[in-house]
Formats: sequence, C-alpha cells, structure tokens
Amino acid sequence: MQELPLAKVYQLIEPGPVVLLTTARRGRPNVMTMSWHMMVEFTPPRIACVVSPADHSFSALRAARECVIAIPAVEMAQKVVGIGNCSGSEVDKFERFGLTTVAARSVKPPLIAECFANLECRVVNTRLVNIHSLFVLEVVQAWSDPDQPEPRTIHHTGYGRFVVDGEVITLASRMP
Amino acid sequence: MQELPLAKVYQLIEPGPVVLLTTARRGRPNVMTMSWHMMVEFTPPRIACVVSPADHSFSALRAARECVIAIPAVEMAQKVVGIGNCSGSEVDKFERFGLTTVAARSVKPPLIAECFANLECRVVNTRLVNIHSLFVLEVVQAWSDPDQPEPRTIHHTGYGRFVVDGEVITLASRMP
Repeated sequence: MQELPLAKVYQLIEPGPVVLLTTARRGRPNVMTMSWHMMVEFTPPRIACVVSPADHSFSALRAARECVIAIPAVEMAQKVVGIGNCSGSEVDKFERFGLTTVAARSVKPPLIAECFANLECRVVNTRLVNIHSLFVLEVVQAWSDPDQPEPRTIHHTGYGRFVVDGEVITLASRMP
Repeated sequence: MQELPLAKVYQLIEPGPVVLLTTARRGRPNVMTMSWHMMVEFTPPRIACVVSPADHSFSALRAARECVIAIPAVEMAQKVVGIGNCSGSEVDKFERFGLTTVAARSVKPPLIAECFANLECRVVNTRLVNIHSLFVLEVVQAWSDPDQPEPRTIHHTGYGRFVVDGEVITLASRMP
C-alpha cells in the first residue's frame, strides 16, 4: 500500500461507497459493514458516521476511539454482505471471510489488504453519539493500493441491492 | 409527484447521490448542490448534512430550520454543476437553470419538479452546526416522480468528475 495524501480522502468518501470499519478492543479486532457516513471537512479530512449500539463494534469504537475505514471494490461484494450479516460477538470475521489484516501506522485497528483504500481514523467528537449514534472521525493516515488503480465501488440501496459504479462524466466546475 | 412512504427514504440517500437542497427566507427560495449527507435513522427518516457558513443557504437553513432535498438524475448533471458554481446571493438559480418550483406540503422551501424525488425536511438538531456545520434533518414528507421510474444518479469524486450509476447486483442479505 502507498501513502495517499490526506487532501484526496474526500474524493473516496464523498461518492458514498459501502465501506468496512475495523475496530479493536483488548487486542481483538473486529470488522463491520457501513453505509451511513459522509465527509464533514476536507483538510484535515473529517468523516461523520453512524455506528449503532446494536452493532458489536459500537462499544469498541466508543471506548478505544479509533477505527480504520477500508473501502472494498465490487469484487468483494459477497464478502461485504457476509460481514454485514454476522456479528463479531460470535465469529472472527477476518478468518471467516479470508481478510488479510495489516498493522496500521497510527491506530490499533487493522488495515484490510484486499481493500483498495484504508483510512486510519481517530474519534474527535462524540456529542451526538447518545442521541444519533453519530461519531465524527478525523483521518490521520491514508493508504491506497497501487495494484487497484481503477476500482469500481458499490452503493447500497437496501436489502442486498447494490448499484455498481458505471460510466464517468467530467464537467467544467470550480468546486473541489 | 406521488407520495413516497417515509420508510423507503433511506434507499434513496444511503447510496450517496449528489442532491439539491432548497431553502427559503423572507419568501425568497434558493437552491444549492450538496454532496455531504448521510442517513442517521430509518424511521422517522433522519438525515445529517453539511452546509457551510460560506454557502448562501446556510443562514436560511439555520434561521428557518426547513429545507427540501431534491434528487436529480444524470440528465440534470450540467445544471447540478451550474447550481454549485454560483451563489443565490447574486442570481435566481431557479430562473437561470430553468427549474420548476412546486409548493411543498409541510415546509416553505419548494420542491423541484425536474427531480425524481423530493424530501421535505425540518431541522431537528443543530448541536454540531457551530463546530462542524452539521445539521440533522427529519424527513416529514417524501415524493417521487412516477415518470422517472429508473433514474440513474450521480456521485461526485471531485472537480466536476462524477460516477454515474451502473449495473445493479442483488445479493441475499438480512440487512434492510
């Protein structure tokens, strides 16, 4: 994996792909599927996300205040669904779904080698956790996989139905 | 436009399309382009979004606490960019871009007839507005256009580059 400039992180999150979220607690990592997230700041890149108390990852995220957002391409769609349909309280999802963990540089939760991008994050705001399960994260280190230069991501529209990235159009714009 | 059940709203927002946001203040409506938004609750549907103080819409949204999220299909991409590249402080964007406004049922900001879905929203949480420009909205009424049954949305990856919805895949899943 190569270092990705932090100023480019929003270009991966703003289009709204399904992502994986890794956490770690007491030395034991876990991973969940996540679709409710958005950018809140370009630089330093900050991301808001919703992790429900019903998710096994919730307590680890709230306690350890660190996570990794790993972005899968469409080839991982079946695993992404599988990860979303079981709980880390019952299984080691990394083992079950054949995910290769890689040590992160700045946080304890692991990177996922099969994902084309990995974002190491720290929790910076928990004021809306109790009312909306909303965490604000800051990306402290970002990585991309040079062997996946043109990944197509997936976008969830409910009940296992995903729209895959299609054609690209570029229009003259002054907006970043 | 037909009423859309509120329980289906998340299926439109979760995949992360670029949307338009209408506001109104002192009887004058405005519209902006928005890409930083996410679901925070299924039912009642709640949506978090980032509207910057640099946006002309910010003061109207904070003061009137109402807005409409209108979702455009790819055919409107050129207008979506145009709307994002000028300010309501200088132009009537509805007139400039030929958008047809329709009165909403429950809020003052208008619906946009050319969009395939329109979500009437009230602001329900402003605790992160000062620090992150983050508003939490609740959708109180939703509409869809039966004449646009299979819209393809656009997802912004920066600097006027958009990924258009491509193929659809459906995988067995227990998740909503």
